[in-house]
Amino acid sequence: MFRTRIHNLFVSLDGFAAGDHVTFDEPIGDAAALFSRFDGRVIMGIDRADAPITVDRALFSMWGQGIGAEIMGRKKFGPQTGPWPDDGWQGWWDDAPPFATPCFILTHHPRPPIEFANGTVFHFIDAYPATALETARAAAGGRDVRLGGGPSTIRQFLDADLVDFMHTITVPVVLGTRVHLWDDPGVLDERFALESVSTPSGLTHRLWNRLS
Amino acid sequence: MFRTRIHNLFVSLDGFAAGDHVTFDEPIGDAAALFSRFDGRVIMGIDRADAPITVDRALFSMWGQGIGAEIMGRKKFGPQTGPWPDDGWQGWWDDAPPFATPCFILTHHPRPPIEFANGTVFHFIDAYPATALETARAAAGGRDVRLGGGPSTIRQFLDADLVDFMHTITVPVVLGTRVHLWDDPGVLDERFALESVSTPSGLTHRLWNRLS
Repeated sequence: MFRTRIHNLFVSLDGFAAGDHVTFDEPIGDAAALFSRFDGRVIMGIDRADAPITVDRALFSMWGQGIGAEIMGRKKFGPQTGPWPDDGWQGWWDDAPPFATPCFILTHHPRPPIEFANGTVFHFIDAYPATALETARAAAGGRDVRLGGGPSTIRQFLDADLVDFMHTITVPVVLGTRVHLWDDPGVLDERFALESVSTPSGLTHRLWNRLS
Repeated sequence: MFRTRIHNLFVSLDGFAAGDHVTFDEPIGDAAALFSRFDGRVIMGIDRADAPITVDRALFSMWGQGIGAEIMGRKKFGPQTGPWPDDGWQGWWDDAPPFATPCFILTHHPRPPIEFANGTVFHFIDAYPATALETARAAAGGRDVRLGGGPSTIRQFLDADLVDFMHTITVPVVLGTRVHLWDDPGVLDERFALESVSTPSGLTHRLWNRLS
């Protein structure tokens, strides 16, 4: 069965999942506290880190399992707005973006793709969620599609009822005001079965599986 | 860093981790209750099963991550004892054993290896734990080595202080008398840091990381 999955979506105690002001210096805006317990090294497998294998890391490592393509919002790729400037920008990740699959960046300003040696290809498409998902699925080689965020993009896919699985992680910080993740109070209860565990690090992992 | 890892080691509430009597009909002896909540389909990745992605499955899926070889006791391969009969036995797994790596089976009766199309190769070696580990490591292509059990084999490696990581899963069943996992009361406390979570299914996952 083909799934559309969301992984490692960090949320504050007051329900915010991203910063307000994304800049070149602050890729995640003014919400860095959300990622203070995150170890990106393990997203491709718990063997990728020297330090202890923890429950957090085991759960983070679902990120890459069986994924064949990603869809992301434009701000996950860069801080630019409007028509793309001729600035040579290739994303936040230097020469080796961690995706290693086709990635579809939602933008009203399509442009030629950017390819990397590790298999990452950034495609820029102007599409509604359902169409973007069809495009990503066709490129995923029979594997699942990951929705990479940010929260505004995820909310669009939730509103269109296109999300099959979601792994959110509540971080014990309060942000006050940033980008809200949850908008529609009914979506979660009505559409998903929830399982959650809290870990010694203070994180609460919630696994939301779409009710069939 | 190279690790020697144990995964999905199911233990009863009274500390037993295998059955007494392994036969052709009962590969895990009279301890099938230990595996009643285990879904082997997800050991290679949480995407390998249609049903919900649960915390249990996410943790089971560590099994295959970054593993390049396995070491197992003879009874995990088959119920035979003494010199190998000429019975055409190739293990419990038909044509596609799930390992897909070299596997080293500890036996006092070495014999030629058995190869499968999916990359699994069963080697039969007569070796002490440290030597077996050297052999497996050389075949693991820079990845980790998994100790596949059973409990008697694992206990030998624990006694020799050769285990870096262990994922045990306590199952809410009482077996009464079978094969004990824990022998030496000091080993766990002194050598490992523990993190544990309990899941809605009733399992308790314990992740033991060797203290450096």
